[in-house]
Amino acid sequence: MNFVRNLTKVVLIPRSTYGIRSYSTPSQLIVKEEEGIRTITLNNPKTRNALSLEMLQELEETLTRPSPDLRCIILSATGKVFSAGHNLKELTSSDGRPHHQLVFDNCSGMMLKIQQLSVPVIAKVNGIAAAAGCQLVASCDIVVATENSLFSTPGGSVGIFCSTPGIPLVRCVPRKVAAHMLLTGLPISAPEALQAGLISKMVSEADLDAEVERIALAISSKSKPVMALGKKFMYKQMDMNIKEAYQAGSCVMVDNINMTDGQEGIDSFIKKRKPVWSHSED
Amino acid sequence: MNFVRNLTKVVLIPRSTYGIRSYSTPSQLIVKEEEGIRTITLNNPKTRNALSLEMLQELEETLTRPSPDLRCIILSATGKVFSAGHNLKELTSSDGRPHHQLVFDNCSGMMLKIQQLSVPVIAKVNGIAAAAGCQLVASCDIVVATENSLFSTPGGSVGIFCSTPGIPLVRCVPRKVAAHMLLTGLPISAPEALQAGLISKMVSEADLDAEVERIALAISSKSKPVMALGKKFMYKQMDMNIKEAYQAGSCVMVDNINMTDGQEGIDSFIKKRKPVWSHSED
Amino acid sequence: MNFVRNLTKVVLIPRSTYGIRSYSTPSQLIVKEEEGIRTITLNNPKTRNALSLEMLQELEETLTRPSPDLRCIILSATGKVFSAGHNLKELTSSDGRPHHQLVFDNCSGMMLKIQQLSVPVIAKVNGIAAAAGCQLVASCDIVVATENSLFSTPGGSVGIFCSTPGIPLVRCVPRKVAAHMLLTGLPISAPEALQAGLISKMVSEADLDAEVERIALAISSKSKPVMALGKKFMYKQMDMNIKEAYQAGSCVMVDNINMTDGQEGIDSFIKKRKPVWSHSED
Repeated sequence: MNFVRNLTKVVLIPRSTYGIRSYSTPSQLIVKEEEGIRTITLNNPKTRNALSLEMLQELEETLTRPSPDLRCIILSATGKVFSAGHNLKELTSSDGRPHHQLVFDNCSGMMLKIQQLSVPVIAKVNGIAAAAGCQLVASCDIVVATENSLFSTPGGSVGIFCSTPGIPLVRCVPRKVAAHMLLTGLPISAPEALQAGLISKMVSEADLDAEVERIALAISSKSKPVMALGKKFMYKQMDMNIKEAYQAGSCVMVDNINMTDGQEGIDSFIKKRKPVWSHSED
Repeated sequence: MNFVRNLTKVVLIPRSTYGIRSYSTPSQLIVKEEEGIRTITLNNPKTRNALSLEMLQELEETLTRPSPDLRCIILSATGKVFSAGHNLKELTSSDGRPHHQLVFDNCSGMMLKIQQLSVPVIAKVNGIAAAAGCQLVASCDIVVATENSLFSTPGGSVGIFCSTPGIPLVRCVPRKVAAHMLLTGLPISAPEALQAGLISKMVSEADLDAEVERIALAISSKSKPVMALGKKFMYKQMDMNIKEAYQAGSCVMVDNINMTDGQEGIDSFIKKRKPVWSHSED
Repeated sequence: MNFVRNLTKVVLIPRSTYGIRSYSTPSQLIVKEEEGIRTITLNNPKTRNALSLEMLQELEETLTRPSPDLRCIILSATGKVFSAGHNLKELTSSDGRPHHQLVFDNCSGMMLKIQQLSVPVIAKVNGIAAAAGCQLVASCDIVVATENSLFSTPGGSVGIFCSTPGIPLVRCVPRKVAAHMLLTGLPISAPEALQAGLISKMVSEADLDAEVERIALAISSKSKPVMALGKKFMYKQMDMNIKEAYQAGSCVMVDNINMTDGQEGIDSFIKKRKPVWSHSED
């Protein structure tokens, strides 16, 4: 695993200028960071933004790259296909089972990492998200998509059932929708995806940038450690029964209230002034 | 805890007249009980029906007050805000962690109690339900809301992430909707809430009373112990895997069938007559 | 149990002619199998397709009857009622608890069997699905329903809370919808069912056959063992936490890729030709 990771040589060099950070990325991604908002753009339209091993590793390294200013990540794509999923050429028998396992371990690890990040990740979708591309969308915290976007898990048609894309999918949409998508491979439209809960908001193509920016600003205007604590507990409590969740939740709330930014927020509210966040962990 | 409970002195004196029960409530609620339907109205519009410790304790005592006639509870509010959530003035550092813990223990306890009650609880919403106010809505069994109602969990904006409101929220709506609400703090409209499953029915303001009454009558016309058994098992089986749920469910069905009111229901159905419930536990 | 099963004498005799299989069914069902698609039609409109013990047992035997060609099952019904649920006449006290237990054990077993089958099951609904009839719909993998279909769990009105119908229901639709249906007994319309996720697709009556056929063909054109592996894992991973699901899922994907039909699918995709499935388990 380290061997392959070294081979891909993902070198991210921050060039900090006037509060704008940009990273040179080897080949698959465009990365930009401005005012705490990192935008990662899948940029290999020729392969329909295939989630090759290289793309998966670049994504994970770019998503997890530490930055004290970071508040929010936007995941976007160039071209009409957000991502068509795995690169099937990497999955022939000539590559061998250990290589296949490596691809899926990297893929699963990257998808899980999105939830584990301390900052919210917004998928900005304008096009087709298929198979592991649909999995990537379903793995983001928030999804904004244009009206013409399409979502599908068509792996069964090429003999590879979308078993791992199904993992975040069944956790996002009703079972009857997930089963229809997984068992038939037929796509659902953006309005169907909105109805099913796969996307948070549907907008026209003209409104996509503004809607995503509105959400990113709503997030980046808040206290970083408060958001980190909130996102972490949100996913944690989902897997608890409701009584355990409340027992843990009461403690989380009391901790949050006694953080510097918790008290700053309450004080600013009572005094009807704008809060000034310390972003301190305490 | 007992100390604070004693201080609030929630005194509920039943005045039974012609089948109508009303309770004098100290300050925060209007409570009425008629033909088995108890209506509890949050009545502190000046604080936007804030869920102060006093309000939380009055709610719990009013929800749990025993009454042999009780079949259904309607939870409503006066003013344009159903509830704006916690009273932030009770959560400053000067109150101290033990007091903060007390507030959240009371809040979580009251929210859980709604599910544990043997009678269904209907939220009747005509306005804004925010933070713990949104949690209260999400904690009711059934929710009817007007078209202009709004739902939000904006705690992050004042440095207090809506971690506990998120507990019932993520159990009601798709993750992409919950995450959008919790991470951005932006409100969702009633049509969005309907689509997401946060509300059971959306109606015009003119139809709100009639729709809630229709639901309350559908509930109150049924056998009390049958409804108690049904509501209890509904929540219990949600936390089981499906095989365990069926194993337990078959037994619950056989017990239900062999209750006096189970047999009365079947007999009335076969003989095409109206059932006469004994409301007996046997 | 065996005693009753013997009494019902469900005899299914395959008559294989020109690739068409039909089974003579004693009384309750019409069964047809053509090009790998088995259509089972509930055919007792006089009892509103009541799920009598006989019907339940015939359904289970017909659903599970082995056939090497089988790819997909369609579950349909004659008449305006898809199914009205249990036969209440079988549940009077004179039948005794052991008989009641037998009915529910058979019912729960049949409902669970649908998920456990290696082929997808599509419910084709054109009418009313009530109580255990609604449970049957909720238990199928995919549901296509006409615009005028209705779904309800009205058991409470006859003293028998729909506790077991609630088991698949709460796993399909948002809690506020499930609770409304179960506690009030009031029906939801097809558009409401679509919004809630109880049905996968809603169509006009004129389009019902074509839509179901489209889905059945999308399924039957795929590799049988790949679909079997995919359906099995889809339900298995739902009950895991997401990390366990990914750990198991990566292995399932690697196994799938190294199946004969996995490699055939990838090769056909790379070479831009139609795959030819071996349907081999290897």
